[in-house]
Amino acid sequence: MKNYARVFQGTAFTSLSPNEVAILEDHLFCINDDGMIEEVVAPGASDYEAIVQAYQDTEIFRRLAKGQYLLPGLVDLHVHAPQWAQSGTALDIPLYDWLNTYTFPLESRFADITFATAVYEEVVGTLLANGTTTALYFATIHREASLRLAEICAAKGQRGLVGKVVMDEPEQNPDYYRDADTASALADTERFILEVKRLAKSTKQGVYPVVTPRFIPSCTDEALRGLGELAAKHDTHIQSHCSESDWAHGYVRDRYGKHDAFALHDFGLLGDKSVMAHCNFLDDNDADLFAKTGTAISHCPLSNAYFANSVIPIARWHAKGIEIGLGSDLSGGFSPSLFDNARQAVISSRMLEDGVNHAVPAAERGVPNSRITIDEAFYLATAGGGESLSLPIGRLAEEFAWDALIVDVSVPGAKLPLFHEDESLYDIFQKIMYLIRPEHIREVWVQGENVHARR
Amino acid sequence: MKNYARVFQGTAFTSLSPNEVAILEDHLFCINDDGMIEEVVAPGASDYEAIVQAYQDTEIFRRLAKGQYLLPGLVDLHVHAPQWAQSGTALDIPLYDWLNTYTFPLESRFADITFATAVYEEVVGTLLANGTTTALYFATIHREASLRLAEICAAKGQRGLVGKVVMDEPEQNPDYYRDADTASALADTERFILEVKRLAKSTKQGVYPVVTPRFIPSCTDEALRGLGELAAKHDTHIQSHCSESDWAHGYVRDRYGKHDAFALHDFGLLGDKSVMAHCNFLDDNDADLFAKTGTAISHCPLSNAYFANSVIPIARWHAKGIEIGLGSDLSGGFSPSLFDNARQAVISSRMLEDGVNHAVPAAERGVPNSRITIDEAFYLATAGGGESLSLPIGRLAEEFAWDALIVDVSVPGAKLPLFHEDESLYDIFQKIMYLIRPEHIREVWVQGENVHARR
Ligand SMILES: [Zn+2]
Ligand SMILES: [Zn+2]
Repeated sequence: MKNYARVFQGTAFTSLSPNEVAILEDHLFCINDDGMIEEVVAPGASDYEAIVQAYQDTEIFRRLAKGQYLLPGLVDLHVHAPQWAQSGTALDIPLYDWLNTYTFPLESRFADITFATAVYEEVVGTLLANGTTTALYFATIHREASLRLAEICAAKGQRGLVGKVVMDEPEQNPDYYRDADTASALADTERFILEVKRLAKSTKQGVYPVVTPRFIPSCTDEALRGLGELAAKHDTHIQSHCSESDWAHGYVRDRYGKHDAFALHDFGLLGDKSVMAHCNFLDDNDADLFAKTGTAISHCPLSNAYFANSVIPIARWHAKGIEIGLGSDLSGGFSPSLFDNARQAVISSRMLEDGVNHAVPAAERGVPNSRITIDEAFYLATAGGGESLSLPIGRLAEEFAWDALIVDVSVPGAKLPLFHEDESLYDIFQKIMYLIRPEHIREVWVQGENVHARR
Repeated sequence: MKNYARVFQGTAFTSLSPNEVAILEDHLFCINDDGMIEEVVAPGASDYEAIVQAYQDTEIFRRLAKGQYLLPGLVDLHVHAPQWAQSGTALDIPLYDWLNTYTFPLESRFADITFATAVYEEVVGTLLANGTTTALYFATIHREASLRLAEICAAKGQRGLVGKVVMDEPEQNPDYYRDADTASALADTERFILEVKRLAKSTKQGVYPVVTPRFIPSCTDEALRGLGELAAKHDTHIQSHCSESDWAHGYVRDRYGKHDAFALHDFGLLGDKSVMAHCNFLDDNDADLFAKTGTAISHCPLSNAYFANSVIPIARWHAKGIEIGLGSDLSGGFSPSLFDNARQAVISSRMLEDGVNHAVPAAERGVPNSRITIDEAFYLATAGGGESLSLPIGRLAEEFAWDALIVDVSVPGAKLPLFHEDESLYDIFQKIMYLIRPEHIREVWVQGENVHARR
């Protein structure tokens, strides 16, 4: 038997594939010093009892209590960290007003490192409390504050992938909030990449710099090209918004005579470590390019309801083999919870399948075979996010990081509706997915460390 | 100055009209012995200081703490109380299987009063914890268990309107779960009405019997006619499902050659105290009949995403003057929170307006002018529900019941994103509506009594 840093004994839910949830009843999860899952042992296995015997009276053994279950930590593929300060407001106005009246003035305030620190401390803490163990963040154009966000992730134990946002196009961005010029945008980005890589050396769970053109309209061709080169040079992740709305999709077609996907590809911005938010207006050629290049989609169902003018056909793109995960898109999406987004992913897919206008005959109302199940939404929030980032996260399986939530379904005052001793574990899984709130998330672990707890 | 039973001092949000939220900053709410709001006093008013002076050092005076706000208690117009036991499960299967494999077997178990008591205790407690101060319940076909639900509402202090469900049609209901025959269905209903009216005499906040044909397919013509007569005889509320899905809408057209609305009207089931759930497939004639008869719509946005094949055009029906409130529709809708439903009401309306299929040109994709705002969703969850039930509830205004939530936006570990001392109260209102969870609801008051508290 090996020496483990920690051993957990309990029942876990984890995705095997987009449509299959594995129920690992009363398994052992053996964690090594690096915070990786070294062994998962089923009750029947030969070394199960030996491990229990060896560890059960030690401090590093943890038997889950009755009513507690393990889920993989959630992976949020799209968060505008500064926008947490305005989450839940101004969703009744058009995107243009939303950006110019609310969002850009707010983001410009992150030149103030004190304000940035206050907001970033809270958003990272809030996401952890909601079960998000890995987050792919847009910060702002400010290098210093963006680095602060990475430092806060490092300190709080969240796996943060952070981008200093580039928006250098003078026509499309306000004077008070854009990069001074293309050269400084690229220089700041490269310096930021190096600073975060330095920080990563002392961060167990990892922090990662992300090349981040806000979206094509925000950037000059020179910046887009330069960012593609920087990502290649430093082997970083890349994120942006892609074909989000009618307006954005039309803008790129007018500028380049092609869709976002091909334009981004021309600048070297698609690849295995690329994650593109929204992607509502991809067509089949765009989707094939995503699949071919290994580019992932960050599906942001709550935000899309307000700003994307459509429902993205997730089932269709999953069938093409595209990597897909979930994004909260704070604050285009109001909720810091990926569970809220998982539920909305199912709901939106049902609306796409059935259609919305009752005055249209049923046969013509929707798009058949568009629905996804709650099992698939769980996959998007966990394993799909991990695959999108090309990181070993999002599953409770060997050779994955021990990023895990301990969920309690019997919290006093918030008990889930369980009335039978013999309720099936699959029903319990579904009730968790549909009814979980932060108060049920009793502990959050990242890379083998306990980073959040409620007592 | 009058003698009040309680005086609250704090900032409240309450609807003035479907599109206007009143912000009552630092007002006094003076409650009489009957639990009604006798006076609302603004800071500038002549007797404001006198009331504060007279009451501030007494036990019945309550000054809200910093970070606390008052909202009206929520009114849930559609809850299947027994289905709480299966909330969150089986939403990936068709309605027919959902009813026959899950729902009818579960509801049949409410013949067992012990089981019924356990589930009903929990659902009433859970709804109160989510801020629902008034609920319009479907129970089951069982008279005894249905009465138990009313007794539990009475004991816990929730304003419950409860229906013993009638489903007597042998073709459409399983042998193990239907009324024995039409005569017994009607006799049980009348006895239930009298029993609840007796209970109401000793219940401060009120409990009400509700005539409850499940939906037209479940009932014989004789039962529907008899129920209309019973409602008229005893002046009760009436509830049913109306034009919910393609299937249900088509069934009624086949049976009567007319839509649900006109069929229900023929049986005497539409009127000022009638609340019909879903109503997705109303046409303009049906809607005019609703407006003319004072019949209300219970809008169930979460449930509709799974079972109603469409989005109901709430903005259109509101413009006709129809009374509309929100329903959780447990467990067709998974969430016991009307805040979740208010948010989904906005989201669904945006999807109806914009459309869902990106492959259709924008101009043909959706139904223009369908969106509702979060202010309107708040109205539906509060004042609109009160109007639908023809009860003086859902507003923090004089001559309304003191049904109120004390919400705290600064709960440790769940603080809402407020970073400025001068954040506008309207922004705080929006953040509450979008980000509130049960842990922010610190106290719930019904008819002047504190019925739920978190410490
Ligand atoms: Zn975004
Ligand atoms: Zn119903």
